[in-house]
Amino acid sequence: MEGNKAVAYKGPGQVEVIDIDYPTFELKDGPGVNPANVGRQVPHGAIIKTVATNICGSDQHMVRGRTTAPPDLVLGHEITGEVVEVGPGVEFIKVGDICSVPFNISCGRCRNCKERKTGICLNVNPDRPGSAYGYVDMGGWVGGQANYVLVPYADWNLLKFPDKDKAMEKILDLAMLSDIFPTGFHGAVTAGVGVGSTVYIAGAGPVGLAAATSAHLLGAAVVIVGDMNGDRLAQARSFGCETVDLTKGGPAEQIEQILGVPEVDCAVDAVGFEAKGHGEGAKEAPATVLNSLMDITAAGGALGIPGLYVTGDPGGIDEAAKKGSLSLSLGTGWAKSLSFTTGQCPVMKYNRQLMMAILNDRVHIAKNVNAKPILLEDAPKGYAEFDAGAATKYVLNPNGYLS
Amino acid sequence: MEGNKAVAYKGPGQVEVIDIDYPTFELKDGPGVNPANVGRQVPHGAIIKTVATNICGSDQHMVRGRTTAPPDLVLGHEITGEVVEVGPGVEFIKVGDICSVPFNISCGRCRNCKERKTGICLNVNPDRPGSAYGYVDMGGWVGGQANYVLVPYADWNLLKFPDKDKAMEKILDLAMLSDIFPTGFHGAVTAGVGVGSTVYIAGAGPVGLAAATSAHLLGAAVVIVGDMNGDRLAQARSFGCETVDLTKGGPAEQIEQILGVPEVDCAVDAVGFEAKGHGEGAKEAPATVLNSLMDITAAGGALGIPGLYVTGDPGGIDEAAKKGSLSLSLGTGWAKSLSFTTGQCPVMKYNRQLMMAILNDRVHIAKNVNAKPILLEDAPKGYAEFDAGAATKYVLNPNGYLS
Amino acid sequence: MEGNKAVAYKGPGQVEVIDIDYPTFELKDGPGVNPANVGRQVPHGAIIKTVATNICGSDQHMVRGRTTAPPDLVLGHEITGEVVEVGPGVEFIKVGDICSVPFNISCGRCRNCKERKTGICLNVNPDRPGSAYGYVDMGGWVGGQANYVLVPYADWNLLKFPDKDKAMEKILDLAMLSDIFPTGFHGAVTAGVGVGSTVYIAGAGPVGLAAATSAHLLGAAVVIVGDMNGDRLAQARSFGCETVDLTKGGPAEQIEQILGVPEVDCAVDAVGFEAKGHGEGAKEAPATVLNSLMDITAAGGALGIPGLYVTGDPGGIDEAAKKGSLSLSLGTGWAKSLSFTTGQCPVMKYNRQLMMAILNDRVHIAKNVNAKPILLEDAPKGYAEFDAGAATKYVLNPNGYLS
Amino acid sequence: MEGNKAVAYKGPGQVEVIDIDYPTFELKDGPGVNPANVGRQVPHGAIIKTVATNICGSDQHMVRGRTTAPPDLVLGHEITGEVVEVGPGVEFIKVGDICSVPFNISCGRCRNCKERKTGICLNVNPDRPGSAYGYVDMGGWVGGQANYVLVPYADWNLLKFPDKDKAMEKILDLAMLSDIFPTGFHGAVTAGVGVGSTVYIAGAGPVGLAAATSAHLLGAAVVIVGDMNGDRLAQARSFGCETVDLTKGGPAEQIEQILGVPEVDCAVDAVGFEAKGHGEGAKEAPATVLNSLMDITAAGGALGIPGLYVTGDPGGIDEAAKKGSLSLSLGTGWAKSLSFTTGQCPVMKYNRQLMMAILNDRVHIAKNVNAKPILLEDAPKGYAEFDAGAATKYVLNPNGYLS
Repeated sequence: MEGNKAVAYKGPGQVEVIDIDYPTFELKDGPGVNPANVGRQVPHGAIIKTVATNICGSDQHMVRGRTTAPPDLVLGHEITGEVVEVGPGVEFIKVGDICSVPFNISCGRCRNCKERKTGICLNVNPDRPGSAYGYVDMGGWVGGQANYVLVPYADWNLLKFPDKDKAMEKILDLAMLSDIFPTGFHGAVTAGVGVGSTVYIAGAGPVGLAAATSAHLLGAAVVIVGDMNGDRLAQARSFGCETVDLTKGGPAEQIEQILGVPEVDCAVDAVGFEAKGHGEGAKEAPATVLNSLMDITAAGGALGIPGLYVTGDPGGIDEAAKKGSLSLSLGTGWAKSLSFTTGQCPVMKYNRQLMMAILNDRVHIAKNVNAKPILLEDAPKGYAEFDAGAATKYVLNPNGYLS
Repeated sequence: MEGNKAVAYKGPGQVEVIDIDYPTFELKDGPGVNPANVGRQVPHGAIIKTVATNICGSDQHMVRGRTTAPPDLVLGHEITGEVVEVGPGVEFIKVGDICSVPFNISCGRCRNCKERKTGICLNVNPDRPGSAYGYVDMGGWVGGQANYVLVPYADWNLLKFPDKDKAMEKILDLAMLSDIFPTGFHGAVTAGVGVGSTVYIAGAGPVGLAAATSAHLLGAAVVIVGDMNGDRLAQARSFGCETVDLTKGGPAEQIEQILGVPEVDCAVDAVGFEAKGHGEGAKEAPATVLNSLMDITAAGGALGIPGLYVTGDPGGIDEAAKKGSLSLSLGTGWAKSLSFTTGQCPVMKYNRQLMMAILNDRVHIAKNVNAKPILLEDAPKGYAEFDAGAATKYVLNPNGYLS
Repeated sequence: MEGNKAVAYKGPGQVEVIDIDYPTFELKDGPGVNPANVGRQVPHGAIIKTVATNICGSDQHMVRGRTTAPPDLVLGHEITGEVVEVGPGVEFIKVGDICSVPFNISCGRCRNCKERKTGICLNVNPDRPGSAYGYVDMGGWVGGQANYVLVPYADWNLLKFPDKDKAMEKILDLAMLSDIFPTGFHGAVTAGVGVGSTVYIAGAGPVGLAAATSAHLLGAAVVIVGDMNGDRLAQARSFGCETVDLTKGGPAEQIEQILGVPEVDCAVDAVGFEAKGHGEGAKEAPATVLNSLMDITAAGGALGIPGLYVTGDPGGIDEAAKKGSLSLSLGTGWAKSLSFTTGQCPVMKYNRQLMMAILNDRVHIAKNVNAKPILLEDAPKGYAEFDAGAATKYVLNPNGYLS
Repeated sequence: MEGNKAVAYKGPGQVEVIDIDYPTFELKDGPGVNPANVGRQVPHGAIIKTVATNICGSDQHMVRGRTTAPPDLVLGHEITGEVVEVGPGVEFIKVGDICSVPFNISCGRCRNCKERKTGICLNVNPDRPGSAYGYVDMGGWVGGQANYVLVPYADWNLLKFPDKDKAMEKILDLAMLSDIFPTGFHGAVTAGVGVGSTVYIAGAGPVGLAAATSAHLLGAAVVIVGDMNGDRLAQARSFGCETVDLTKGGPAEQIEQILGVPEVDCAVDAVGFEAKGHGEGAKEAPATVLNSLMDITAAGGALGIPGLYVTGDPGGIDEAAKKGSLSLSLGTGWAKSLSFTTGQCPVMKYNRQLMMAILNDRVHIAKNVNAKPILLEDAPKGYAEFDAGAATKYVLNPNGYLS
């Protein structure tokens, strides 16, 4: 049995590479594992040797200490890898297949999975619908920022790349299929983006850039990205987006300069609950993004909200924020007949078609989000730089496939 | 020229029947008319002799003094009538046609109308998208609780009933096509109601009962209506709904008793910003309905929100409410991947098909909402009784058609 | 091990009850089993003791000798039953569950299943996408007109009824969920039936009556059913349909008498390739239904085509028919911008919601199709009576549950 | 009053430039005008000075003598122009506006227009739903291959370009909005094309190339165009399409060479009833395209059919073709659960969004279809070259705007 190194959360601001057990076809007890899931048998699972496993902005919520994640929780839900072992219940996935692993774990057997709502599978998380690898309160499935990881319900969850060599040529692009590309795409789709749309995306982090890429792929006429981070805005401009610099004020005026009107058809919130106000020295203001999006979305438009909002935030700025309450000007949205879509992206609804676009050279997501492979040992540095605002998507390379 | 009596808002708590001018094909100055609309020519209009013109819950917001409506504003946006005159630009609608008038006025010539979004027409209200008859800040089109009313863009707006005699047989049902039946239907549709759904509707007023009727028509398996008004709940039970009595506590427990689970697939907010908390002696609590609907809607569900939310409420309970801010537990919704649809119902999207259902005896909306014709002169009494919680939909009968 | 009696096709016009092996978790060789499927392991399967197992019109194509079905092929794809054994790969379905079995077998693991297209699963039939129990050229899965039958991918395929006692109270209704109710519903949905639609359904056999029931459930204003069989037309009238007697001429005139116009919004072909012309002594004319539906569907309408059309018909009336070519007046459809949806119903897309409607007493499908339980031994008589045009849906009762 | 030169059909194979009357706000009698339309008043109309007016493949059906078009019928339904006069019923369109004219004439006041089905407007063609300028059996509205043309219901029909100067910079692209770009787009949309799709388009004429352009804009992974004309195939390759040369055999094999499988997700018929078989010396075979598309479309796919099919074709190859009957292997489609969408494109559903994509430089339709301005006087030459298979979209320039 091989060694298995993994990136673990150790406490606020701290991640470390530690040694963990090589996976078996059972969910064993460990940090953050839901008691009701301990000992769960996984004959339908596959063991994956990671090819690429990315650091995600939502990992940062845990690392910043904004959640109840316990120490030693193994991180990582953006996993791409090679199948090295399959359980007895796996029929179609084979050893040697290179696959993308959707970050939301789902069973393929419940009502929600049958309705393609794999982000809220009923059978994988004893606490509530929906699950993910390496995440607090998500059932306890071990994270994939590691050499090896167990993927349950492998025939259902895994997206096999049709050709191994071609996949390795575009592996940094394909590595974005596990989360941020579908998540950004879901944001754009649920915001109603189509051919000819004008679109505003709040946030130029990896999900925001993925949403911008998706909006282009969907035929949007103009894609505008807003942020306060100059490097990330430059990254957005590098692939044809317009940008709004929020250190200079709210988005409406700058949108007007771009479009001639202070409104867009479609808006995406790629920021979530750790939002800040705009202007210099802006402070955390959890409702600011949503309120501003209601302002700048034209009547009849829609808001896609892939940015995470939580039910409780111990580090929230006030009592309301601590229990996840937001002060929203819903009347503004109501007067405009806006609609709103929240929640985790159901990755399996989109990942095959986005894979096709990547393999046929229709989209260059890795370049657009500035994907950069780093060693597993450098994960702590990657987390720190990403948290500091680097315009980079860090891709861990635990097994040397990316060199 | 004939006389024209009309119901006018006189001040908080006061409505009166007054004499107003017989309409011409011009929008003249008057109480609440937007200056930019004064003198607007309406050659595309038709003059309607009202057959039925209903009192609506949203009229009550004005009458209660919760808006900036000026005295003498003529009320009424739920209009059904006979065409007695057409302008020179009207080609297909003819004198003698009996028609339903959608409460939202729309031009049939702007981008939004072409996209069926007639609730946010760009050309009829100089202030913002969307308009209605007899309503504050909606452009100033004269209300229709009167003998006669002007309908602009008549070929576009009017829904002609195919057969006059058959229409008069079901006129109380057809009178609900101008607003509450499509509005309730839109609430159900945007809540995702389909064959086999379980549905919870907050509010057993006329819109709530129309939403319940619509949910049945759409094939829902179980329709549950919640309110604190026992008469209205009895009305809901009269056509096969289950009910939740909110004087006895929140809806989750009672829903569980009905369904075996404390959750529904679909939820409709037919209450809006004047919501009250639940339990005995509950006070106004504008976010309570939405927060409770997020609680009791199952993951993957949707909320249809036809209930009105405003951008400013001078009578609001606190500073936040006065500017239309609601304290929403959005994280609860996000964790469940809920979606939300707000805004006025685009009546023209649904009224023809609902008319067909009525004419072919597939639905009995007048009975379900307990429609009751009263004289125009009795409008003040109707307003008062409705405000006091009568389980009745008052239909004014200004020209004797309903006797 | 218990005995297992089953209904088998013996030759044109002949069915017989024979003894077959009790199922195991392997697909063994036998009449009609595709060689590539022989020996297939089914650890994901469940063995079902049949509660109800219906005779279907599509079985008649085989029994009439219109296919290449081999003698001794065990018939039956409309199966409802109790789970008596589960394979080691089954996690959520339990022994004792009472379930509906969708007639299309699907794996829950291929691209099409993930997209809810379970009628064209890629993994269960070596010949081509799509499969069914007890049907020629569908992979060879053993039919379920028997005491026991094997259901593969049980966690995916089986629809468990939530409460055993309540299920048994409505078991004849629930027995229609395996095929004809969803199939009729799919016909109605793909014909665009919604609230207020006018609908014409060609064919008053069980699928046509199920489509009519579905159209009502979807809120259709008027549902018209056409056939040449007076008993079946009477059956349609028994639950509120209008009818067209095709022995008296084509449908347009009779539709005009009902609706005032000779056109409907939506049309369903519940007949398929063994269609006959209309009028007295009408002969087989495979394109006649589709051509007539194009005639009587209004511009902008749609045709749902659950009726079976084949790629080869050895018993066809001429050379074109023998190879499945139809002489279609497509220009008629094109001038009206019609759309057409063909193919097997993907049962799993609809069966849960239809179950909810049944359990909550919103629809009475068994009564509408005149479901009648008979003994397994009486299957030959049932087949004969059904072929002779009985207005009855025969439900076999192999294990005495229905008495 | 100014002179008005126009392109007229004179007889099989013959078009000529003739003098016609300058339009007024009345539809006067003339070649091909429906008697019921003679004298129709058009106060809602606008007179357009043509900026660009294209020759269309569907004009060729008339010019080749395959229809009952009368001599002197003025041709032209692909019109872009400047408003020079408006009728008294026009409110929002102004003199000086540069606009695209949707080829389908619609009233904006009937049920179908209200449902966005402007290709089958009920009020403009006394014969049947749907109308167009300069086309046989379409009501008799005068064609626009002329200096001036009357557009009825101008506020509804006309798409105004927001900025005159910017419009003139991209006028050749914008000129494709009147027909072929939306028509190709409709073909792609109704074929189910989305991000990641594989697409086959039958026909590399202007509509086929527009469908290919649309498929790219919609995010298709691979777009394959088939034809027998080498120049047109080269044109398709010029903007990134794969091609199938049908002089070398049917499409399946060549598709397999491109994709690795002999099937695509989506197929578009951009040929219609004058289809030829494939291989050298192929003869007219009206059903060949549809049968071949059913062959090469994967199970679960869809066919978009913008190519014209007629109800009668006096020049058809046999009796069946003369009455518009096609011998279709519908069983092939049924076994694969294919769906089919036919009919004229409802241009207004798409033209605004496609305009936005053009104006923001997201698509270069003029280059892709090889648009070439020619003088009005050169129209006969343009018709002849286009009929001979030139890989060119001819754009008439009657008023010198394009020089």
